[in-house]
Amino acid sequence: MKTRIEHDLLGDLPVPADAWYGIQTQRALDNFSITGVPISHFPQFVRALAMVKSAAARANRDLGSLAPHKADAIIAACDDIIAGKLHDQFVVDLIQGGAGTSTNMNANEVIANLALEKLGYQKGEYQYLHPNDDVNRSQSTNDAYPTAVCLAIQFACEPLEQAIIQLKGQLEAKGREFADIVKMGRTQLQDAVPMTLGQEFEAFAVNLGEDIDRLHEASRLLCEVNLGGTAIGTGINTHPRYQALAVGYLAEISGRPIVSATNLVEATSDMGAFVLFSGILKRFAVKLGKMCNDLRLLSSGPRTGFAEILLPPMQPGSSIMPGKVNPVIPEAVNQTAYQVIASDLAVTLAAEAGQLQLNAMEPMIVYNILNSMKMLGSACTMLDSRCIRGIKANEEQCARHVDNSIGIITALVPHIGYSNSTRIATQALTTGSTVRELVLAEGLLDEAELDRLLSPRAMLAPVAVAS
Amino acid sequence: MKTRIEHDLLGDLPVPADAWYGIQTQRALDNFSITGVPISHFPQFVRALAMVKSAAARANRDLGSLAPHKADAIIAACDDIIAGKLHDQFVVDLIQGGAGTSTNMNANEVIANLALEKLGYQKGEYQYLHPNDDVNRSQSTNDAYPTAVCLAIQFACEPLEQAIIQLKGQLEAKGREFADIVKMGRTQLQDAVPMTLGQEFEAFAVNLGEDIDRLHEASRLLCEVNLGGTAIGTGINTHPRYQALAVGYLAEISGRPIVSATNLVEATSDMGAFVLFSGILKRFAVKLGKMCNDLRLLSSGPRTGFAEILLPPMQPGSSIMPGKVNPVIPEAVNQTAYQVIASDLAVTLAAEAGQLQLNAMEPMIVYNILNSMKMLGSACTMLDSRCIRGIKANEEQCARHVDNSIGIITALVPHIGYSNSTRIATQALTTGSTVRELVLAEGLLDEAELDRLLSPRAMLAPVAVAS
Amino acid sequence: MKTRIEHDLLGDLPVPADAWYGIQTQRALDNFSITGVPISHFPQFVRALAMVKSAAARANRDLGSLAPHKADAIIAACDDIIAGKLHDQFVVDLIQGGAGTSTNMNANEVIANLALEKLGYQKGEYQYLHPNDDVNRSQSTNDAYPTAVCLAIQFACEPLEQAIIQLKGQLEAKGREFADIVKMGRTQLQDAVPMTLGQEFEAFAVNLGEDIDRLHEASRLLCEVNLGGTAIGTGINTHPRYQALAVGYLAEISGRPIVSATNLVEATSDMGAFVLFSGILKRFAVKLGKMCNDLRLLSSGPRTGFAEILLPPMQPGSSIMPGKVNPVIPEAVNQTAYQVIASDLAVTLAAEAGQLQLNAMEPMIVYNILNSMKMLGSACTMLDSRCIRGIKANEEQCARHVDNSIGIITALVPHIGYSNSTRIATQALTTGSTVRELVLAEGLLDEAELDRLLSPRAMLAPVAVAS
Amino acid sequence: MKTRIEHDLLGDLPVPADAWYGIQTQRALDNFSITGVPISHFPQFVRALAMVKSAAARANRDLGSLAPHKADAIIAACDDIIAGKLHDQFVVDLIQGGAGTSTNMNANEVIANLALEKLGYQKGEYQYLHPNDDVNRSQSTNDAYPTAVCLAIQFACEPLEQAIIQLKGQLEAKGREFADIVKMGRTQLQDAVPMTLGQEFEAFAVNLGEDIDRLHEASRLLCEVNLGGTAIGTGINTHPRYQALAVGYLAEISGRPIVSATNLVEATSDMGAFVLFSGILKRFAVKLGKMCNDLRLLSSGPRTGFAEILLPPMQPGSSIMPGKVNPVIPEAVNQTAYQVIASDLAVTLAAEAGQLQLNAMEPMIVYNILNSMKMLGSACTMLDSRCIRGIKANEEQCARHVDNSIGIITALVPHIGYSNSTRIATQALTTGSTVRELVLAEGLLDEAELDRLLSPRAMLAPVAVAS
Repeated sequence: MKTRIEHDLLGDLPVPADAWYGIQTQRALDNFSITGVPISHFPQFVRALAMVKSAAARANRDLGSLAPHKADAIIAACDDIIAGKLHDQFVVDLIQGGAGTSTNMNANEVIANLALEKLGYQKGEYQYLHPNDDVNRSQSTNDAYPTAVCLAIQFACEPLEQAIIQLKGQLEAKGREFADIVKMGRTQLQDAVPMTLGQEFEAFAVNLGEDIDRLHEASRLLCEVNLGGTAIGTGINTHPRYQALAVGYLAEISGRPIVSATNLVEATSDMGAFVLFSGILKRFAVKLGKMCNDLRLLSSGPRTGFAEILLPPMQPGSSIMPGKVNPVIPEAVNQTAYQVIASDLAVTLAAEAGQLQLNAMEPMIVYNILNSMKMLGSACTMLDSRCIRGIKANEEQCARHVDNSIGIITALVPHIGYSNSTRIATQALTTGSTVRELVLAEGLLDEAELDRLLSPRAMLAPVAVAS
Repeated sequence: MKTRIEHDLLGDLPVPADAWYGIQTQRALDNFSITGVPISHFPQFVRALAMVKSAAARANRDLGSLAPHKADAIIAACDDIIAGKLHDQFVVDLIQGGAGTSTNMNANEVIANLALEKLGYQKGEYQYLHPNDDVNRSQSTNDAYPTAVCLAIQFACEPLEQAIIQLKGQLEAKGREFADIVKMGRTQLQDAVPMTLGQEFEAFAVNLGEDIDRLHEASRLLCEVNLGGTAIGTGINTHPRYQALAVGYLAEISGRPIVSATNLVEATSDMGAFVLFSGILKRFAVKLGKMCNDLRLLSSGPRTGFAEILLPPMQPGSSIMPGKVNPVIPEAVNQTAYQVIASDLAVTLAAEAGQLQLNAMEPMIVYNILNSMKMLGSACTMLDSRCIRGIKANEEQCARHVDNSIGIITALVPHIGYSNSTRIATQALTTGSTVRELVLAEGLLDEAELDRLLSPRAMLAPVAVAS
Repeated sequence: MKTRIEHDLLGDLPVPADAWYGIQTQRALDNFSITGVPISHFPQFVRALAMVKSAAARANRDLGSLAPHKADAIIAACDDIIAGKLHDQFVVDLIQGGAGTSTNMNANEVIANLALEKLGYQKGEYQYLHPNDDVNRSQSTNDAYPTAVCLAIQFACEPLEQAIIQLKGQLEAKGREFADIVKMGRTQLQDAVPMTLGQEFEAFAVNLGEDIDRLHEASRLLCEVNLGGTAIGTGINTHPRYQALAVGYLAEISGRPIVSATNLVEATSDMGAFVLFSGILKRFAVKLGKMCNDLRLLSSGPRTGFAEILLPPMQPGSSIMPGKVNPVIPEAVNQTAYQVIASDLAVTLAAEAGQLQLNAMEPMIVYNILNSMKMLGSACTMLDSRCIRGIKANEEQCARHVDNSIGIITALVPHIGYSNSTRIATQALTTGSTVRELVLAEGLLDEAELDRLLSPRAMLAPVAVAS
Repeated sequence: MKTRIEHDLLGDLPVPADAWYGIQTQRALDNFSITGVPISHFPQFVRALAMVKSAAARANRDLGSLAPHKADAIIAACDDIIAGKLHDQFVVDLIQGGAGTSTNMNANEVIANLALEKLGYQKGEYQYLHPNDDVNRSQSTNDAYPTAVCLAIQFACEPLEQAIIQLKGQLEAKGREFADIVKMGRTQLQDAVPMTLGQEFEAFAVNLGEDIDRLHEASRLLCEVNLGGTAIGTGINTHPRYQALAVGYLAEISGRPIVSATNLVEATSDMGAFVLFSGILKRFAVKLGKMCNDLRLLSSGPRTGFAEILLPPMQPGSSIMPGKVNPVIPEAVNQTAYQVIASDLAVTLAAEAGQLQLNAMEPMIVYNILNSMKMLGSACTMLDSRCIRGIKANEEQCARHVDNSIGIITALVPHIGYSNSTRIATQALTTGSTVRELVLAEGLLDEAELDRLLSPRAMLAPVAVAS
């Protein structure tokens, strides 16, 4: 392989001749291979890094800290990357030591080499435009990296939210489709009182939909960035007007309401916004998991379970049992949910490990949050298109359950009293008779009254009760 | 022991004659002894239960669902409990099967017996006022219990917030006290660039202070209650106007902006608000833990550590080493933080275990959240009064660190260049000389210029940089 | 309150006149009130502390490091505490800063004052026998405390193992009782192939029983103690023969095969044995939780669920639905299991937080492990006596499920082929017919052959298959 | 793309013409894309699957359940895969619904097509040799899959253990290299008593080394497999002698002491061995993390930290601070440790979610365990070769710390008493004098005696103490 030689604090090192990255990226490649997942796995992150570099270059240009021709070349290089170019050059493993320095330098080096080309120079001719002195000017990894992370998470929110909205819409559609199917509600897996199957799906929709608002609220906290704080938040080596300018440009480039954090020293080491954001992802995973547990319960059977709904068959369920079809999509979603819950623990552990003016574990926070978002988005889309959409109701079974149920006696309590009701319920359980039969046999209510009280309309909507 | 006999679905059972609770509480006492922590451990929860019962009684009275003399007796009994009476009668273990039924029945029974006394009857004469038919009228455990939990957490927020505010104030005071002490900042435990000790404490204050807002936001979600939904959110056995009335009364009694959840079926099984709230507590624990880790690092020594601050000695540190004093208060806070992080996992596990129309694990969610809040409040107060308040700066050590540091060279980069700076830094490390000595020896800057650039004023505030 | 004045490194402090503990315990009481759970909550721990102190006193006496009359008094005091005396004087909160120093000093002080009384002196007359110089002689908290913890966990293992053995026995009894009840097995909540209800309970028994061996294996690691290592494992301030003598005495007093760890420096900071032990507790909790989930599934109904077993009713299930009975005991066990899983996380976090020669978070490791063991023991006993013992089979439902099931066709595959079987299964699902009816209608097998192949004997035991 | 049409229970589907897998693998590819990590990412797992299939084919052949020519072709195909062929055809995402059915069918299909080729047929001509009827004969996913998992983990143990052994050896070498460097030990980050730097590294070696034994013990539990249990452990559709034969062949092929689990119904749903194994991985991660935390503490500086050791510089540490070098390798290992701890939670959650006769979440257990092992192996190798190997001691700093330390007074306690010692220690702290100076000034010991008592030899080894 052809190489070029680059130089840094530790000495010389060959870099592949056609690599757009440079020596520090090469060292990071040699040092880290924990996850095997490179930065480029998350294009939103690559774009965010380029936006931060572009904003810094603009501010430096305005303040005379960077020669205009350099600034313009850097900005043009960033534009290319934002547009999708050279993403495959962002090669460093997401989990890395150094608090993100390798990721920041990977960006600085790719941008420098791309800018050099625009200025008519060769890769590695850093005497004309330098990754550190020019691209990273007025920045430290410690402000540029977390700022890019804040942006990347916001960008990754969009497809996730779209996937949730689609899924929610599908659940609402099922809610409407099943609006008239009366079934037994269950509490603690025991027969409770009637409801409609539509209400059950509508509740799923409402439940998941709430988290779109929560994601928005948590995203808002990510709009406060520490850009301009440099190494530890004191803004060492920046122009007094740099911070405001750079943050303003970043808001403009990204189209997000980015503002400066009020205390940059605090903001530089604080992982609170990530902990909170990850907590929202966990909350959504918990809800998604609970819903899939329910779908698996409701479709249990076909003959010995609840069997109130039928999931669309997606693949043969067994290598030995003919005709068996399993709830494979909800099962995959359940596993995704567990993975996200575990990732939230990883984020928590990393956040607690911050020391003094920085948190060196931030790379794994980024990895886990972006990974969780990607997995949750896939899970929602898979669940929507390969499961919810094809769910059918088993109306006969739903109706049979209501007719046989003892729980409907709850609706009679205001009319025949708690004591009579308890006695009838116990008798039904022992004898196998229905509530209806026993109430009529005892003459507690006449048939018309009983019909009225046990009609869906009466049982599903609150009714007046005489004291 | 003298007893009275009470009766329920399962038959007769003796209850202590002087117990204000009844048969179902007795059964729960016999059944559950997991934590040994009774409801009364959290007085806010007892008060919240009484408020819910009072609100329901008022609504039932207005709608004619409950005779006025019964309603009045119930309301008066609730008032007594809200005022602190009979809390020791809330005896059931917080972790219980039955989704909170035992806690709800404990409240129903104590209130019924207290109301009976007010009406001139004996304990247990439920024919005159019944725990289920009257106190629990128009309610199910499944709406009354979670509604009380939402209130209890809001009440428990007050002392916690007060403790955080106190701690924050103390940190701010230290920030001001140490405002002029220049020290080295550290990133990744390696010497970075200068800052003040005051900035360090101010950052702690800002960091913790943010969570007061987060607690408020999360509390807001707990104002949406499912009261009126009864068994599964369909409101079975309630008057059409009951829900609005009861929720309104609850807002009035509690002084909180309580409103009805928009979808009661969803709200009945959803634990999302608790997961989020617990996530905020975890976030605060993470921050508290990180700060205490820092305090232990900064006070490490006295001779072989960082030794930039001195914690007040609270107890002899060793049973064998004379004169040793340990950072016992931060250590206790760190452990509290871990306990809260673990409790958040417990809440997560419980939330995910909901099934269909209810979450039977809600009791342990309540237990963990209330326990975490209590522990965090204690930890903040302990940290404030027994540690932060008495912290002293080791000014000589701070100054010595800055003078000896290599990191201050960062401030010279814009003036002598990155390449010169790197060389000087390496030399300083190898030879043990100071940056100052080497720069002067090489004649890179004259003494006056060097003094100016390395003055705290210059290093701590962003300075103009010529490109 | 009458007090006496005691003195330590930090100065004078009043202690209640009748307290058997002294000034350092008093300081710890003032400093720590996180959990509210004192050492005495775990009598095994108190006994273990006394055994360690007794072993040290014997070794010191033999080596001439402690005057015989002092040693004898200390040993006698320890004997009293081992026998159960003065446990209420072990008052310090289990979660404390100082790596257990307060617990160690609590023990030293109570033993010193009890020994003083035996020698005819007053409490606090430490000039005659001193908590540090005499009771703690040749020890540091850093070896005495973890050694006591290792013993305490072993002691706490006994009642836990007894509870598991009882529960296992009960499950085996149910396995025998239900040995002839044929039912459908389920995989992924979908009907699979037949098994017996007895096999299901026998599997529970085997599953839980395995963990008795695991607990033994993990206990074995706790027999290696660091007693004699003193402050950091180098054994500073001990006689060269002290370690071997003290460990030997401890083995003798405790009746456990206690041995010295091979590397005392390592052993002093290592929490590995606790992490492993906690991991076994978590494993058991996971199994217990899975079994309780199954019990709740199998007893779901009574009319709209699986309803293959009936749990004994322990309390009325609902404050609104007459006749409802819930699986409250398994639900309480599930919550216990979650609590133990969360405690394992707390242990993990604390173990990871060790620094250099010690782990200052050991107190919360102790608290969580002992608490988990206590809760698991209670849960097993509760589950055994209040649930498993009273479980009844619903034989009709089990038989009905098998007859209606499609899964039994698996037994026909070797005889009618996978392709025929799949077709019949699909037809059964669509038409609602039974497998039996369809196979006979198609003439694929004659009735006698079909009876033979679908007999429980044939389906439950592996049969010869011709290729 | 050219395709061929295959058929299953759900109908026809095109499969790429040159794919060695078949229709069910294709469906799984369409259904699942959660992690993006295919089975082939773990070659040990692919080999294990082929070994199980080979063992089953041999047993079936011996029993006449499979025609010899088919058996031989299957065995030959398995041999190819064991040797590394066609691993890229194991394409299904590791996290999948269906409890591993897709992975099992991926194996069945690839083996069938490879066997078909060996018999002279085309891919997809399953009438001559069928993935289900022949390759999967006498098996279910529910026994074949977990059996392969047990093997795969054992195989993956080898490189991990090698990596740990290497790392341990390196730490031992450093222990010897630093055997004579006396330094201060620290407890709770406070100066304690002297030790050698060699002891510190030796302790690391001992600490990590123990886990090799623990991995072995946990692996032993994975030798018990449920092969022969088929769908739910009852062995339906197998020859009475099949189980013993198949297990015996598997032991032979794998070279592992594979035996049959004692209760196959239990073994089919039990995840206990995986929970335990994952717990050991977590324990190792905790230890690795603690050691890396220590390395970062000990190398903190260069001027304002402990600075007792120097880590080899692996990359420039800062994009803004010249000359800064960070502990990037330990930081990356710390993050790996957190990731493994989080994965253990994922395994726990999945294990708890088992239902009745199976655990549908097993795929994510497999994914997390194999991933953790791979990451831990990489981390150990990275730490060994890129960090530990190059660590240098800062002898001057170590010596300076001992000389200045107050903690050495502990060695004088037996000679000048605890009370004198405490006073001197306090004085030293206040005045900045050394212990040595103060003891001499007070004439408490003469210089020769003091030299002797404070010599490393005396302080590092237990010494006789007169009472």
